[in-house]
Amino acid sequence: MAQSIYSNYPPELSAAQQKFLVTAVKDWAIHNGLAVRPGPTVVPEGGNPNGVLATNAPVTLFPSPFPRTCFTEATALQEVYNKLYASITCNEEWLGEIVKGLIEVDDFVANLWKVHLAVQKEGYAQNLALGLYRSDYMAHVSPAGDTALKQVEFNTISSSFGGLSALVRQMHTELLTSPPGSSINYPSHPLLQSEVPPENTAVETLSSGLAVAHKAYGASKSTPALPLCVAFVVQDTERNVFDQHALSEHLKKTHNIPRGYLGSNIHSRRQLIPTTALPPPHSPDSIFEVTTVYLRAYYSPDEYTSSRDWEARTHLERSAAIKCPTVLNQLSGCKKVQQVLAEPTGLDHLTGFLNDVDASLIERVRATFAPQYDLSPNSKGRELALNPETALNHVLKPQREGGGNNVYKADIPGFLQSLPESDWKGWVLMELINPASNAQNVALRNDGEVLRGDVISELGVYGTILWEDTGKILHNNHGGYLLRTKGKEVNEGGVAAGFSSLDSVLLF
Amino acid sequence: MAQSIYSNYPPELSAAQQKFLVTAVKDWAIHNGLAVRPGPTVVPEGGNPNGVLATNAPVTLFPSPFPRTCFTEATALQEVYNKLYASITCNEEWLGEIVKGLIEVDDFVANLWKVHLAVQKEGYAQNLALGLYRSDYMAHVSPAGDTALKQVEFNTISSSFGGLSALVRQMHTELLTSPPGSSINYPSHPLLQSEVPPENTAVETLSSGLAVAHKAYGASKSTPALPLCVAFVVQDTERNVFDQHALSEHLKKTHNIPRGYLGSNIHSRRQLIPTTALPPPHSPDSIFEVTTVYLRAYYSPDEYTSSRDWEARTHLERSAAIKCPTVLNQLSGCKKVQQVLAEPTGLDHLTGFLNDVDASLIERVRATFAPQYDLSPNSKGRELALNPETALNHVLKPQREGGGNNVYKADIPGFLQSLPESDWKGWVLMELINPASNAQNVALRNDGEVLRGDVISELGVYGTILWEDTGKILHNNHGGYLLRTKGKEVNEGGVAAGFSSLDSVLLF
Repeated sequence: MAQSIYSNYPPELSAAQQKFLVTAVKDWAIHNGLAVRPGPTVVPEGGNPNGVLATNAPVTLFPSPFPRTCFTEATALQEVYNKLYASITCNEEWLGEIVKGLIEVDDFVANLWKVHLAVQKEGYAQNLALGLYRSDYMAHVSPAGDTALKQVEFNTISSSFGGLSALVRQMHTELLTSPPGSSINYPSHPLLQSEVPPENTAVETLSSGLAVAHKAYGASKSTPALPLCVAFVVQDTERNVFDQHALSEHLKKTHNIPRGYLGSNIHSRRQLIPTTALPPPHSPDSIFEVTTVYLRAYYSPDEYTSSRDWEARTHLERSAAIKCPTVLNQLSGCKKVQQVLAEPTGLDHLTGFLNDVDASLIERVRATFAPQYDLSPNSKGRELALNPETALNHVLKPQREGGGNNVYKADIPGFLQSLPESDWKGWVLMELINPASNAQNVALRNDGEVLRGDVISELGVYGTILWEDTGKILHNNHGGYLLRTKGKEVNEGGVAAGFSSLDSVLLF
Repeated sequence: MAQSIYSNYPPELSAAQQKFLVTAVKDWAIHNGLAVRPGPTVVPEGGNPNGVLATNAPVTLFPSPFPRTCFTEATALQEVYNKLYASITCNEEWLGEIVKGLIEVDDFVANLWKVHLAVQKEGYAQNLALGLYRSDYMAHVSPAGDTALKQVEFNTISSSFGGLSALVRQMHTELLTSPPGSSINYPSHPLLQSEVPPENTAVETLSSGLAVAHKAYGASKSTPALPLCVAFVVQDTERNVFDQHALSEHLKKTHNIPRGYLGSNIHSRRQLIPTTALPPPHSPDSIFEVTTVYLRAYYSPDEYTSSRDWEARTHLERSAAIKCPTVLNQLSGCKKVQQVLAEPTGLDHLTGFLNDVDASLIERVRATFAPQYDLSPNSKGRELALNPETALNHVLKPQREGGGNNVYKADIPGFLQSLPESDWKGWVLMELINPASNAQNVALRNDGEVLRGDVISELGVYGTILWEDTGKILHNNHGGYLLRTKGKEVNEGGVAAGFSSLDSVLLF
């Protein structure tokens, strides 16, 4: 079943059908804000001097089939996952041990840890922390043909595409139901006649997380009291702005919370400490106090180009605003943590972090882990990686964030042998997740090219949690999803770059 | 008052304020579908091969002050105007007399009339007609300083920008009220603190007109019965697609009426006659019957490049669908009709067409006319045009649709004398409308350029009417508006071309 459903999906499009569908999708996308700013591959340098142009986000023309059991399980586990990462963040000693093992191979992790130590020394001004998470999975097909949910990664910072993925779900639904029961937008196909993608509440979930933190912050800490806002920290070169707008507009309209603006001169804003009070650059007489700093920046090493950026991050961490996320919470999302949790031969960390969670639920979380290993001497991981036969079932990932390309299967033993053994600690070995091998879809890229072919889909589920540093949880919620569908030849690449597409799910 | 309100408006923007406001407007526009496809002045040929790019519609950064009395009067008169143009359309003899006087100077009018005669000969298959109108005005300031509403033109075909103008109103309102009472988006200014632009129900009004016609069409006339739709006839090169999408999406979501698609091969669709039944090009098995043909094309002479286009228009006119508009209704909107109605020394046509309308209301309609004259021998118009002193208060407009540039003031006598007298019947003389001379605004063009300067604003009010050829009116409604603000140096030019901007009104 898992594989056969893909065999004749999606239906073939005639030239006229494809032309119509592409036009409908292109126009729907712009009409509804399912858009991105075009990159240099779409509009050559100099072709967009005032930055006015926009294009559709890369999207699939059809929703993709996805196993209902996997979707339901991912949704059911999200709040346990939220709790797991809040608990890890509260255990500074445990997290510190992992980080210390990485300092030698990962400058980025080392510098984040330094920020934590500096702020810890003077004392954190805020004991609440907010997580807006996305847990990413694939539907793994075992050699026996069973399907199981397997986690790819857990994002603790800048979890993106909630705004746009809700729009993709809306677009596919409208195309499927116009007119209801016999869509004229798609060729006839059994999968396209009964189901529509499940509701996608990503915007509501993420916005309500920000709103809960805003409220938990309490009254203004300034004298006289200032109006309060949630500040979005964004990249100067951000192209995925409409995804963020979906959240800030919902925050304003539904929760009546204004969005604050932190410019790129955060590092020099001494007045941010301890209370994050700021005048918007365009309205110097309107001073706002920031209750919550929502980072859609500072997640990647390449965003820190000088000491000014690290000063800025330190400033944010020192402030009395609730951080989404804190530096420690960001660190809890590093690959090494995932590997330690998923090491089959290691200690049972899960039960410790989820000590008030039902054992069967913990086992369901554990079942979503693909086995992961470090490469320390005499370890199971080293054995599996160097053996050409077992290597075939694995991928070697760089430990360091933004640390280069993955190495696959038969290439692993030779690649490792080409490195000095002292560098091996910079790598993690992970058992391969095998999604359905015959899934196909048609993608409309953001340059308007239409590509049909074999694809791999990743499901992300959104969750949000607010907790005290004591471990007490004030809010824990989940809702909404992202389906990201990539051409099979693409192993790396972000949606915004046009190498993969936003999608929605047809459950089967 | 009329003039003084403009003297310090809009407030100056600092560089930081302007940068912020421009970014906010650019992003809001794309996030909410206040967009157009870019033309070749924005993206050079070859820069947009798949037609994916979009940009903000040209908009003003600030709403424009507009006299409340003029706005209220325009709104109050719209349904009388709807009725006037329905009545004119029903009087084929009266309209025919005017058209016959134009045939010599205006091929386009001549050809439209031929379409009417051909269809009349075989018998019209539909006795209902639908008007989606926009009456355009300026707030005229008399030499004594009084303000009065004066009509610029009345549009009976393809009345556009209802969808986008409702969005501009929403955008200005959000900028003005965030946070409520003390917007941080604009510098402080008394006009920007209390008022927001009045509600703009253009989309609801225009869509409900289409929905009323759809319903009035009744059951399918085909055997077996077919599903019904409203067909939008659009230009292949249309860039203002999102304006139309606002109507078709509202029609679908609110009235559950599907949009049909008539391709550019209308001329060859013999099966359209008499019942307009068509399979969408992309879904040959789904045949729909068209209840209502909504023309967003075929309004301008340059759209008719061959006899195929005239055949297509004739086909549409012959069909059993309700036309919006009929050929006769389109002809009622020609400049000559407006001139005959507005000729101060001519017959009182208004009272005849509005025979069941209160006399005081008819006088209020008449008061919106700027005096207009033909240039026949010994006429008042000829006298005013050739006298250099009276010419100063007039504009000479070409009678022919798309017929070239207006001639202003002192240039009129010399221009006329340079033409053979036999060509003078191709021109209409109109008393100048003088809008406030010191109005200013800041426009964001669709190429991202920001222009500040003296402006002239035109108010359009939308109305819709459905009537029988007997003159019986089945539906008459109004609602929604367009404010189009042009740089003062621009005398001609459409919004989509970037020479003028979409705006909203602050009533004073």
